[in-house]
Amino acid sequence: MQVQILDKGYVRLIEGWGDDRVIIESARVSTQKGFLGWGTDAAPGDEKLLRYLYKNGHTSPFEMCGATFEVKAPLFVVHQWQRHRTQSYNEASARYAPLPNDNYLPTVDRMLMRDSANKQAGSTGETLTREDAEFLQERMRDHYDECQYQYQRMLDRGMPKELARCVLPTARYTVMRASANLHNWMHFLKLRQDPHAQWEIRQYANAVNATLSNLFPRTMELFNEQ
Amino acid sequence: MQVQILDKGYVRLIEGWGDDRVIIESARVSTQKGFLGWGTDAAPGDEKLLRYLYKNGHTSPFEMCGATFEVKAPLFVVHQWQRHRTQSYNEASARYAPLPNDNYLPTVDRMLMRDSANKQAGSTGETLTREDAEFLQERMRDHYDECQYQYQRMLDRGMPKELARCVLPTARYTVMRASANLHNWMHFLKLRQDPHAQWEIRQYANAVNATLSNLFPRTMELFNEQ
Amino acid sequence: MQVQILDKGYVRLIEGWGDDRVIIESARVSTQKGFLGWGTDAAPGDEKLLRYLYKNGHTSPFEMCGATFEVKAPLFVVHQWQRHRTQSYNEASARYAPLPNDNYLPTVDRMLMRDSANKQAGSTGETLTREDAEFLQERMRDHYDECQYQYQRMLDRGMPKELARCVLPTARYTVMRASANLHNWMHFLKLRQDPHAQWEIRQYANAVNATLSNLFPRTMELFNEQ
Amino acid sequence: MQVQILDKGYVRLIEGWGDDRVIIESARVSTQKGFLGWGTDAAPGDEKLLRYLYKNGHTSPFEMCGATFEVKAPLFVVHQWQRHRTQSYNEASARYAPLPNDNYLPTVDRMLMRDSANKQAGSTGETLTREDAEFLQERMRDHYDECQYQYQRMLDRGMPKELARCVLPTARYTVMRASANLHNWMHFLKLRQDPHAQWEIRQYANAVNATLSNLFPRTMELFNEQ
Repeated sequence: MQVQILDKGYVRLIEGWGDDRVIIESARVSTQKGFLGWGTDAAPGDEKLLRYLYKNGHTSPFEMCGATFEVKAPLFVVHQWQRHRTQSYNEASARYAPLPNDNYLPTVDRMLMRDSANKQAGSTGETLTREDAEFLQERMRDHYDECQYQYQRMLDRGMPKELARCVLPTARYTVMRASANLHNWMHFLKLRQDPHAQWEIRQYANAVNATLSNLFPRTMELFNEQ
Repeated sequence: MQVQILDKGYVRLIEGWGDDRVIIESARVSTQKGFLGWGTDAAPGDEKLLRYLYKNGHTSPFEMCGATFEVKAPLFVVHQWQRHRTQSYNEASARYAPLPNDNYLPTVDRMLMRDSANKQAGSTGETLTREDAEFLQERMRDHYDECQYQYQRMLDRGMPKELARCVLPTARYTVMRASANLHNWMHFLKLRQDPHAQWEIRQYANAVNATLSNLFPRTMELFNEQ
Repeated sequence: MQVQILDKGYVRLIEGWGDDRVIIESARVSTQKGFLGWGTDAAPGDEKLLRYLYKNGHTSPFEMCGATFEVKAPLFVVHQWQRHRTQSYNEASARYAPLPNDNYLPTVDRMLMRDSANKQAGSTGETLTREDAEFLQERMRDHYDECQYQYQRMLDRGMPKELARCVLPTARYTVMRASANLHNWMHFLKLRQDPHAQWEIRQYANAVNATLSNLFPRTMELFNEQ
Repeated sequence: MQVQILDKGYVRLIEGWGDDRVIIESARVSTQKGFLGWGTDAAPGDEKLLRYLYKNGHTSPFEMCGATFEVKAPLFVVHQWQRHRTQSYNEASARYAPLPNDNYLPTVDRMLMRDSANKQAGSTGETLTREDAEFLQERMRDHYDECQYQYQRMLDRGMPKELARCVLPTARYTVMRASANLHNWMHFLKLRQDPHAQWEIRQYANAVNATLSNLFPRTMELFNEQ
């Protein structure tokens, strides 16, 4: 399952483990009982326990499931992402192999978004016009060409890869794998689907949410109904 | 897969995720390549990379696999176990349900072990004779009966469960689930299979090792050859 | 600063680091400014920023302060405490030195508390009378004497210390040091001052709160006003 | 205490806590004793215990000390640094305030270093000549001017700050605070002072080591004698 994100990025599920039922079984260890069935509307069963656990902050059973994703994202998005210290990461290294020439070019509509939740992240004063946005998008594209030209020349002339990357823009795409348990993924989503998070990482978080909702439908329904 | 440990304990695999190959694929994210095949003795392939990763402390790819176990063990063993802060736990709670009357009774042979690696944990001076060990084992058994008598009476007379447990011995068995990634399990094994670790927890660690060796044979072979 | 807890326990501050001002300075790294003064009611200053950080879940600046405590508590309380995996611990080991004969004896009033928040942790049905509570308190005291008699005899006859402790009750006091940053201490307090937490650990959490309130008065005021 | 690193970076100690003696006191909690004095060559005291703890992997007492640093470093160095998930971070955010025009320009001598430990991070084949290095250093400088020109124009025309940064080079300096306990700092140093680590982050690690050696001279002597 792979979801395309931004102009050249993606989120791809590598593997999930556990399921909604494992959460119940793990919680029931505390009273030495097992899974009793989800129940129906008429006769509610462990659906009710799942809701109770979720609503009352009994987080440890949700650590018994998890998922690993492969993610292609701009460097500045990965930098934000890796502030989450409860995930495990493996990432492409520009020290060891040149990063391919993929750079994030925001759309004009994206540039014109007025972010009511986070004015601080917006412009420093001036209001961006559509005309200027179109102009600046072209300049950004040219700049990426220039960056790649410099990067490639440095590599060609024998500059160490780990130094040649100095000229790469923070919009350059990289690839990583990120693995975490379900509790920690939900914490990630809470912060990164928040309107205060940058629009770009929110697109990734939305895709993670959609994938987790396939794997853990009952738990993610509780998460998403908030 | 369940392994009996001590007189009444066990280690049971609930679930594993990832495999040896996932470790290679995750490591190769750094150079944007995938799995190339394990190779043969004549033409070594990714077996060599796995060894390189393991021997040179590139630990992050080993975080992409993991396993969850259910464990029945004496309270004092669980207390040692949970000092490992990189695992996720769900444990039976004596606050919510009385702990069944299972207590660890060491064998006479166990009592007589001379632990050369860890003299500090041994006796305070006197050397234990077999006769005394047999006598003390009987007293320990009687004592557990006495503890249970007191515990049950407290419960019967209406003492809160969370206080009645004051009289339980640290040898009382409890049940927990413990989940961790493979890197953290190997760290656990390194400390808990060490001759300095208490003999009881070493029996649990040995069983965890055996189970992980089924799930991740190539990685665990590297771990075990040290 | 030491606070007596329960009949024989305590919480003692070993050391704190950082202060409320460091939190502001750390937060201002994000905009490359420093501390501007707390301000007054008439002209609010960084008091306002501190409140903003706290209320909006900007937790990382609160990780720049912290405190270390020494704690004497019953084994079952320490077992609950150490479920918090973001603290660092050093604890007395019954493997290496016999634990002194201090055991937690709940008061009769404590036994009779009706815990409205957490009925599950209460009695299994029967309602405890004051008369029975007094009787059971005596039995608990006798039981601790019996435990100590068995423990000492085992030690005297040469039983390894790490096995002799099998007969110790979970009410036996132990000593540990616990160290964490302020963000993690507040998380600990949120869970352990909660009415659902066991009354005993709540007494320890209250003392930790009082000590932190001396060290970080402005932050803890925000925490405590919730 | 501030140490200049690279052309425009620094490592500045904000605060340390604990000391060598606290490590001993914390370790002695396990046997319920305190600090006995460091001893002399003739009559060795707790110096010996410190060495024992360090050499035998008893790491928890070293978690009872710690230090916070402020660091100015290129984005790509900070990205490497923050892979260490046991530290707490506060970092300048290019979302909220434009990053000042400071970019890392490697010296020609640095460009010419032959890294025997880590050939993979070197050039892709071609051997860099001094003449080419001088030429490329000039191009790098020009490129940074071009990046700043693009960045400033985007900001001036009203591009959101969080998008304008797309054109910043990974050599752009940022500022962060990093806080960790001593055990985790030593783990950081072990990996980042290693010859396989990139030369740039090694300069930062060396400065952290020097500062920690002032704060915890006996422990760091053990670390450094390896």
